[in-house]
Amino acid sequence: MGTLALLHASQLVTLAGAKRPRIGKELSELGVIRDGGVLIRDGKIELVASSDEVERNLTALSSQVSGAPNQLEVVDLGGRVVAPGFVDAHTHLVFGGNRLDDFERRARGETYEQIAKAGRGIWSTVQKTRAATEQELFELAKKRVAWFLKCGTTTIEAKSGYGLTLEDELKILRVIRRLNDETPLEIVPTFLGAHAVPRDLSPDKYVDLVINEMLPRVAKEKLAEFCDVFCERNYFDVEQSRKILTAAKMLRLKLRGHVDQLSNFGGAKLMADLGAMTADHLERTDEQGIAALKSAKVQPVLLPGSVYALGLKEYPRAREMIEAGLPVVLATDFNPGSSPTPSMPMILSLACTQMKMSPAEAISAATINAAYSLGRGDRIGSLEVGKSANIAVFDCEDYREIAYWFGLPRTHSVYSVGERVL
Amino acid sequence: MGTLALLHASQLVTLAGAKRPRIGKELSELGVIRDGGVLIRDGKIELVASSDEVERNLTALSSQVSGAPNQLEVVDLGGRVVAPGFVDAHTHLVFGGNRLDDFERRARGETYEQIAKAGRGIWSTVQKTRAATEQELFELAKKRVAWFLKCGTTTIEAKSGYGLTLEDELKILRVIRRLNDETPLEIVPTFLGAHAVPRDLSPDKYVDLVINEMLPRVAKEKLAEFCDVFCERNYFDVEQSRKILTAAKMLRLKLRGHVDQLSNFGGAKLMADLGAMTADHLERTDEQGIAALKSAKVQPVLLPGSVYALGLKEYPRAREMIEAGLPVVLATDFNPGSSPTPSMPMILSLACTQMKMSPAEAISAATINAAYSLGRGDRIGSLEVGKSANIAVFDCEDYREIAYWFGLPRTHSVYSVGERVL
Repeated sequence: MGTLALLHASQLVTLAGAKRPRIGKELSELGVIRDGGVLIRDGKIELVASSDEVERNLTALSSQVSGAPNQLEVVDLGGRVVAPGFVDAHTHLVFGGNRLDDFERRARGETYEQIAKAGRGIWSTVQKTRAATEQELFELAKKRVAWFLKCGTTTIEAKSGYGLTLEDELKILRVIRRLNDETPLEIVPTFLGAHAVPRDLSPDKYVDLVINEMLPRVAKEKLAEFCDVFCERNYFDVEQSRKILTAAKMLRLKLRGHVDQLSNFGGAKLMADLGAMTADHLERTDEQGIAALKSAKVQPVLLPGSVYALGLKEYPRAREMIEAGLPVVLATDFNPGSSPTPSMPMILSLACTQMKMSPAEAISAATINAAYSLGRGDRIGSLEVGKSANIAVFDCEDYREIAYWFGLPRTHSVYSVGERVL
Repeated sequence: MGTLALLHASQLVTLAGAKRPRIGKELSELGVIRDGGVLIRDGKIELVASSDEVERNLTALSSQVSGAPNQLEVVDLGGRVVAPGFVDAHTHLVFGGNRLDDFERRARGETYEQIAKAGRGIWSTVQKTRAATEQELFELAKKRVAWFLKCGTTTIEAKSGYGLTLEDELKILRVIRRLNDETPLEIVPTFLGAHAVPRDLSPDKYVDLVINEMLPRVAKEKLAEFCDVFCERNYFDVEQSRKILTAAKMLRLKLRGHVDQLSNFGGAKLMADLGAMTADHLERTDEQGIAALKSAKVQPVLLPGSVYALGLKEYPRAREMIEAGLPVVLATDFNPGSSPTPSMPMILSLACTQMKMSPAEAISAATINAAYSLGRGDRIGSLEVGKSANIAVFDCEDYREIAYWFGLPRTHSVYSVGERVL
């Protein structure tokens, strides 16, 4: 560990100063320091200031640690942009196989729902995931971890949900735990047993299984911090979703939900009723849904990657949500079926070009607000004294370039808890 | 130089066998060899076959060259996908500054045309490009060359057009020539003096300048292979465009055109009348335009990146063009204003998700068809004996993954004329 100084960022995007997720105009307040620097000790941020000031502290420090000079590293960032590592608050990291056939079918004009009905879609991924061993799933997901780091992401949320049996769901959650322990990416686990109804069970039987067998084991083994449900026609209706999430809450899991993606199904309102941390997707949510989220302080997690990749036109109405005062979050929705991207810079591009968010709003939504949505707003998501030194360096001079250039992330280097990992 | 063998591609996408650009069902014929290999001598492809067959030839060869064993290199591709390097047939590589302010304005809801009228748009890039020295433009563009290589692209077309004075246009074309000479990227130069009318001249005066001063100098100094025009309301009308392109043709320049991007302006028909190599953009082209291109064998160059980045909804009608038998090409339109992406994999993703092209069609359009559109179909764009060894290796097992994963190109390594350049 030791001491690390990063000097001479053209723009040091600190996002400092928020004690809660940002709303409205606060989203645009990035707290940029020109020619900025960061001083890091033992993985934590000790000083965020102008490079001059960091250097002065460094001089003081180096006299103290002169006995161990190799413990002090100074990096000249050469005028690059520095920001907190992205926090990706919605991913499906662990799965077997891919969905290339579905991808090709969609290019031929089939819809997501048609493909699912034809026995492909989620179900084909469930079969491949069940057939894979824990070790195989670990190896596959470990490669993907490297992709996230390449895009400047240092924390992700990751859901189970491609197992749909007790053992297979536990298997996925154990892979997530091991990835969190053995890779530099911080991974926050979510139990999404209610991702789809398996083919061999009735919906009600499966809901019973989730509530009576899966949830208690997940809680007992502390395999998840959150519980999530896909609340949608042909998946889990509002009452089934309510039952599952209520049971999860009793077990002290925090709540997230896939809601109002394909239809305005009442999911946003449900998440508000239950006091969930987030309501995710929201492509079809109406004014009442937005108002319900607002009054219950539920954070909307917007996932433009899946709208894009499914070739749909209706993006979640980010502007309306921002104007309503919602603390919006952006995430990749990384998954093989509807959003095969690990790239938060790509999501920023989609947010700016398709949802008319400003680059600054998008960056806040992808860092500090996402950190709060994972219950980690006090630890990550901004560059402030005492926080984990999770830092992304971009090969550009202006933070807006992170969202502007698309298709090739401008990531130059990445630090996780003060260690260089890219 | 010497001999290089690439072995064990899971899928070797050869695109072999086309003596002209591909149309209709031919677009899907990728000529994939499983467990394929390539033998390269002095930068040229000597054999494309199964890895077994390449290895047998290698054994024969190595006995011949045993006197100089370091001249023979064997690379195990480890089951990755191998394809011809992408050919990007439409870029604006050389410019000063960026268009971050325009980008932010668009996120606030302003249109491309509103921004141009407010004195920003192309004009702001022209000012920055004029103010830059040849050396400064070279350094800026050299960084961008590295981005193209990272995306698996080995040949690009590059246009002038941000100078709009004789000297500034020549300056840009000289930078392009130098980049072609000094970097591993092959760059095909296009003169686009008629990109916009400069603010201090009337349209007719500027057309005279292009025809009487710029074109003769460009031709005399052999600074361009192609001449291009932005044929659009407020830029150059059909008659002005015809005059310029006719003059260029007399000087033996081949023709391309920016047509029917913002309105159905008659540009496709003009390109057909003049026997142009390509008609580019075509977002608004109607059936008559498509029919005209077809009968004159003009290749359509589709640029979904600019539709995406401008936040527009109307993509060029690729399916209709393919069904009409047009030899479609895909390109990035890399430029600071409307398409800031160097990534052909991103363009493939857009083609599949937004324009309903299949992954195979998109790959043909981005390699062999693009090569023909640049007059280089006999030299690049496929992996065939005698062609330049311009090769992209992707970290995946199925060629469809190149278009499927988006936002982070899966490029593993790149060879240009047999030399590893990434």
